[in-house]
Amino acid sequence: MDIEQCIKQRRTIRKFKNLDVREKILSKILNAARWSPSSRNQQPWNLITVRNRQTLKKIGETASSGSFISQAPLAIGIVMKNADQPLMDAGRMLQQMELMAWSLGLGTCYVTFSPSEREKISEILRVPSDADLITVLPFGYRMDSLERKGTPRKKVSEIRHEEFFTLED
Amino acid sequence: MDIEQCIKQRRTIRKFKNLDVREKILSKILNAARWSPSSRNQQPWNLITVRNRQTLKKIGETASSGSFISQAPLAIGIVMKNADQPLMDAGRMLQQMELMAWSLGLGTCYVTFSPSEREKISEILRVPSDADLITVLPFGYRMDSLERKGTPRKKVSEIRHEEFFTLED
Repeated sequence: MDIEQCIKQRRTIRKFKNLDVREKILSKILNAARWSPSSRNQQPWNLITVRNRQTLKKIGETASSGSFISQAPLAIGIVMKNADQPLMDAGRMLQQMELMAWSLGLGTCYVTFSPSEREKISEILRVPSDADLITVLPFGYRMDSLERKGTPRKKVSEIRHEEFFTLED
Repeated sequence: MDIEQCIKQRRTIRKFKNLDVREKILSKILNAARWSPSSRNQQPWNLITVRNRQTLKKIGETASSGSFISQAPLAIGIVMKNADQPLMDAGRMLQQMELMAWSLGLGTCYVTFSPSEREKISEILRVPSDADLITVLPFGYRMDSLERKGTPRKKVSEIRHEEFFTLED
């Protein structure tokens, strides 16, 4: 899929088809993560691929804003270790995964955890104390007719400043 | 350009051709940012497009690891305001810009600022005190033969864990 089309079409997806994500497809998503840039090329990411239904169910039940993880055929836990810039690097990396997945017919949704949810889900995934679980991204084939309109976006003129930051009138 | 090819080919670029980035191309890059997802769709980004040679020179002279900004025909300052997750949202957004730019023949390099550099560059770009300058990304047409090999990457098997985080033997 063309990159521009992929960026424009991509939407956040919370409902997935009851269809497994095959290893070959998962491999493409993991490779999109692998090729991501990171601060000083530390590549500080660990990716936990979760397919076990009981584990997915437990994560979905724990994450108050991510109950749909329970219904996904696959989730990827993103864990950063010894990173100079864990959130920046994770953000760049997971966006590459999301775009790659979209081009293959899949979708995902970023889930924010509260501190206590993060602690519980770290325990479920056995994340060691010297590593940080950033999020768990569910992945699955998207329902075609759903959620394709997407949330509205600001115009470029609303976010662009020329040469200097200019305050609104 | 195909998304998978773009992700695999993309490299960090620090040397640019002496060639202006036209408004039409810049618009595609800004739109790639605009379509990025953000926490609760806050779209908390402000993008300062800098072409003024004196400003670019001053930024390059201030950023100890970003002297090449002085030679870029264009830079985009990324400023987050009232964001729940400024670094995560900025990372996802700037990765979309980087991939879009790559597909158009351009390149960029993420520059990390020290706190005092950030303060000085915020002043140069007149970023108000209630907003956060994350970075300034230089953009330009890349020198074709340079830096295309890229830094090595870990294998997927080195970053992947199945079902649970597993410690190395």
